Formats: sequence, C-alpha cells, structure tokens
Amino acid sequence: MTFLPSTIPLIQAPMAGAHGPQLTIAVCKAGSLGSLPTAMLTPDSLREQIAIVRKATDAPFSVNFFCHAEPKPDPQIEARWLSRLAPYYAEAGLDPRAAAGPARAPFGEALCAVIEEARPAAVSFHFGLPAASLLARVKAAGALILSSATTVAEARWLENHGADVVIAQGREAGGHRAMFLSADVDAQPGLIALLPQVRDAVRLPVVAAGGIGDGRGIAAAFALGADAVQIGTAYLRTPEATITPIHRAALANARDDATRLTNVFTGRPARGLVNRFVAEVGPLSKDTPPFPLAAGAAAPLRAAAEKRGSGDFSPLWAGEAAPLAREEGAEALTRRLWADAEAVMAALSQRND
Amino acid sequence: MTFLPSTIPLIQAPMAGAHGPQLTIAVCKAGSLGSLPTAMLTPDSLREQIAIVRKATDAPFSVNFFCHAEPKPDPQIEARWLSRLAPYYAEAGLDPRAAAGPARAPFGEALCAVIEEARPAAVSFHFGLPAASLLARVKAAGALILSSATTVAEARWLENHGADVVIAQGREAGGHRAMFLSADVDAQPGLIALLPQVRDAVRLPVVAAGGIGDGRGIAAAFALGADAVQIGTAYLRTPEATITPIHRAALANARDDATRLTNVFTGRPARGLVNRFVAEVGPLSKDTPPFPLAAGAAAPLRAAAEKRGSGDFSPLWAGEAAPLAREEGAEALTRRLWADAEAVMAALSQRND
Repeated sequence: MTFLPSTIPLIQAPMAGAHGPQLTIAVCKAGSLGSLPTAMLTPDSLREQIAIVRKATDAPFSVNFFCHAEPKPDPQIEARWLSRLAPYYAEAGLDPRAAAGPARAPFGEALCAVIEEARPAAVSFHFGLPAASLLARVKAAGALILSSATTVAEARWLENHGADVVIAQGREAGGHRAMFLSADVDAQPGLIALLPQVRDAVRLPVVAAGGIGDGRGIAAAFALGADAVQIGTAYLRTPEATITPIHRAALANARDDATRLTNVFTGRPARGLVNRFVAEVGPLSKDTPPFPLAAGAAAPLRAAAEKRGSGDFSPLWAGEAAPLAREEGAEALTRRLWADAEAVMAALSQRND
Repeated sequence: MTFLPSTIPLIQAPMAGAHGPQLTIAVCKAGSLGSLPTAMLTPDSLREQIAIVRKATDAPFSVNFFCHAEPKPDPQIEARWLSRLAPYYAEAGLDPRAAAGPARAPFGEALCAVIEEARPAAVSFHFGLPAASLLARVKAAGALILSSATTVAEARWLENHGADVVIAQGREAGGHRAMFLSADVDAQPGLIALLPQVRDAVRLPVVAAGGIGDGRGIAAAFALGADAVQIGTAYLRTPEATITPIHRAALANARDDATRLTNVFTGRPARGLVNRFVAEVGPLSKDTPPFPLAAGAAAPLRAAAEKRGSGDFSPLWAGEAAPLAREEGAEALTRRLWADAEAVMAALSQRND
C-alpha cells in the first residue's frame, strides 16, 4: 500500500455539515486518512480548520470540495418549488419569503488559494473535477487528487482528466451521489458489481465506497480489487460527529430498507433515511431547483421542525449499511474496522470446503 | 460446508426460459448445485427434464418454483395496458387480439406431486414460500428448502416460515426480484450492505446472490458472511443456455450502467438490459396488469421484432455484473469460478499493509 499517504488503507469520508476537524483528527491518529469537508465552509473557516488539524497531528489528511457548476437561479423554477412546499410552510406558520438555506460553494479561486498555502497531502473532489487550470494548481501544490465515479464511464473520465485515485461509489453510499456524467440514478450499479468493473477499466488505484460498515465489508472490497476503502456513515455515530440528536436517534433505529435516494433537500440525489419530507415530496421530485438551490426552501422547514424535536424535514443522511454502525469513539472505531477486516481476510484463507 | 448437498459451495441460479437440463447437468458435473427452472414448464415437462438430469448425473440438484399468488384478470386493467401498447401493435402490424404470452404457473398440487415422486435434493422458491401444507409435503419428500430475501425483513420471514436456507438477493441481480413483503424496489439494498445484515439477523445458512460474476465477487460474498454463492447471468453466455442470439449479443455488449429494473415484460420488477420497450414504456410502468398477466401483451411484440432480428421488445435479462461474463462451457466456467475464488481468498491473507 503506497498510494495513500496514511498508514492504514482506510479513508474517512468527508461529510459536509456532519463534522469538523475533531473527527478528522481522531481518524488520523488511528493511522487512517482523515478528511475535512468544505462544501459549507468559507475560505477563512477552512484555513482555521486546517490549522486545528495541524495543531493536533502531523499525520496526512485530505480536504474535500464539491465541484458542481453553479446554476443561475430561475425565478419560475424557484416559484414552482416554493408553491410545492407552500402547504408545509403554512402548516409550520412560516413565511415563504424566509426561504434561505446553507450555501454550498463549488471549488474556486479563493478555496484554491487556501490549498496552495496549506498544501494538504490529499484533495478529493465530488461531482467530477474542477476546471483544468484549478486542478493543475492543486496538483502543483503537491496534493494527491481523488474523485468519485458511480459508473465505469465516470471512472474512465476521471482517469483521463487528471485524477490520481478513483473512488468507486456504489449505489449504497449515504449522502450525495458523486454522479456527474449522467443524471439517471437507476443507471448506477451496486458496489459488488461496480468495483471489479472499475478495477478492470482503469490503471489508477481504486478506493471502494458505499454500503461498507464493518470489517466484513472492508475485506469484501479488497476481494473485489480495491486498493483502499472509504467509510462514511459508521462515523456519524461517533461523538466526534456534529450531527443533531435527531439524526443520531434516527441512525440508531435505521433498518436496511429505510434509506432512499432523494433530491428534496438540495436538488441533487443523496441517500438518507426516509422521513415525512422524503416520503411526501420525494424521494425524487421533478420540481426541485438545480443543486444546490433547492436547499434554500427546505431549510426553514427543517429548522422549525427540529425546534419541536421533529426530524420530519431534516436530511437524515445514511448509507445502506447504517444498521452496522454502533456508538464508539472515532479513533477506536478506525482501529477496530481495520483489525476486524484483517481478521476476516485471514480467516478466508482458512476456508476448507 | 455441510448445508448444501453439492461439493462446491456454488449454486447455478435457475433462469426460467433461459435454459433446460443441459446447463443443470454441466454445473452438477463440476460439483456445484445445478438448478432446474420450472416457472414455464408443465408438470409433464418437469418430469421429463428431471429424468434427463438423472440419466446424465448422480449429483444432487435443485428444482426451482415461482410461488406467486395467481391474480384474477381485470378487463379494465388489461384494456388499459393494451391501449398503452396499441401504438407498438400498430407499428408492427399486429392485432391486439393476438395478445397471449407464456404462462408462468405458481407451485401447486400437480407440481408438488412431481417433487414427491422425484425427490430432488433441494427445492428453491421465488417470491416467498408456498402454502404451509404444500411446503410440508416438499419437506417430507426430503428436499432442502431455499428461498430468496431482498431485505432483512424478508429473510426473517423466511426463517420463521420454514425455509432451510436464505438466499440474500442484492439489488444487482438479473431477472425477477424475489421481493414478496414490499412492492417498493427502492427499499432494496445492494448486496454488500444486505448480506452482512441478513447474516446477523438469521441463524439459517445464507447464500449470496446478485452482481457476482467472477472469483472476486464470490470471495467478497464469503468475506461478507455468505455460506454459499448463487450465480446466474454468467451462465447465460455458456453454450448450454438456450437464450436467443439477440440476447447473447446484447450480453456480449453489456455495460455496467446498462441494466434497469423493469416490470414491462411480466408485471413484476426484473432486471434486464435497456432496450426500446424498457426505455419507452418503462422501466417501471404503472399500467401493467399484475404478474404474470402483463406477459401476454408483450409477447407478440417480441416475437414480431425478433423475426426482424431486433431485440427492441425482448426481455434481455441480465444482472449488473453481466460485463464480467465471457463465452465458456458451463462445466469449465463453474470450475474456474471456484478456483478463482479460492485464489482470491488465499491472496487476501497475504496482504501486507
């Protein structure tokens, strides 16, 4: 294992809005590659968070950016979406003019400057890759470039456009689908089928992601040809995650069949636990404004519901392996995941049929 | 490995309409559990096919039945479906009154009598289990009972209702989804997430199915906790399969992102390669009569198109791992699959990170 700067071939998935540097630090301390999500950060907060990580550990870490195209707001589409949500605004006693959600800025000039200054060991992108000129600057700053593919075609595209590592994201993954060449979520294979096909299609190192929650899944990924494994949802139940108690409780009660790919929170398909908003407005609505503009109208509904202790309008991001997770510190979890994976791999060679 | 009557812990998936006893025989000769699909057979043809297998090999084999509830045809629903397909009938110059497709009979009295007489080592069911009285007779005939679960809830149900073995069918699987407790295909996890959760939920032996096309997938399934592995699509490219040259050619050109779950051929969701019929009428249509009645109207369109050499209206069943398959005899394929899986498992224990 030489392609990752970490000691253990595991990556903690960056989960915007779900954690800050404390999770990254704990994971790095266990020898795995910690990640910092930045999609909801300003350049200044990113600078601060990197400083916090650096103060706590010398270990290499990764910084993650969204690199979507910024859509121009379309008043007609915005109005249609607000009118679709009007009954919920009325029920909550909210004024639709309050609609304003957390911004999700794509990678650009200002964030690139932070990377050139901070020079992290790795930078990962979601939704493809940034413009070639920006990507060249990140490479010149010495960062290993990772990005996710949900199909073989996307994996080939990433290899041909300058990625150093392809993350094969199975359909099972929680949070936003990395898809960038197709908008059809039904085209995307499950990890057990996707991973060996990506492995055969590209020369780059391949990281497995999606639906992996314990040592068995990690061992399975290596059997399928992965060079490393990325894990997200399992870290949401660590004390280092900054998710709400509502999200935490939902994860503790998660079932294998309880997640859906939904676009109602942001305008892009992302996997989370079904709640009232997903069930009634989604899971996939044709009325949402393009990502990330849909988030504006959903945010006040979420805030009002959470004030009443309800998760009816919260994005309860989770992958299909959520029920495999347990409450545990992030450093101990990381060590356990790898020890369990090694035990599973060792036991496989003892099979005697 | 003691729960399966075969020497190798692999099962060839029964694929109704895609093969007869020759595939079963070749697989049995390699020491794996061959299966006979019966969904489109009369009791007499089943008797004949079992005799053909028995004449060729002493090895144990499995007989597979569908056990859906037979729906009463609803003239209104039938008329709506025919009117949805009317433009295609017109284009092909067909009379809608010609609509009549292959019957798919559920397991019942007559088929049960064949089992009591032939006493195969194993019987597998699709879509749950038959009525308790019929199941008791199959058990009394000495057959190991297998059935498929697409969720943890279905696995628990099968354990509580008399199955001896649970097949965990991942979303990736080709052909008809085994689902019987829920009609929501989006609730069904990918195999890498489903399998360990089923393993933890039941005490019965668990067979992995769906998206597995080579030794890597088999090894991965064992890492996830499977006791055996069932493989279907890979066998469609063997000379023993009886699929059309059109289906064969489509499989040879399959891509990872080319399959969809569609109900347009039979009324139940099944995974196959996208063609014109799937793309234009499906993939999931709300207009189909209940399974298996929808097959009647699709069949003449298929026949007419195939006469012109076109697969536009053919069910091109395939799982998401179809591109991993190659042309190869079924006995050699079976031996290679297991040898490759053993090599992958042995290599995993040599990992040195």
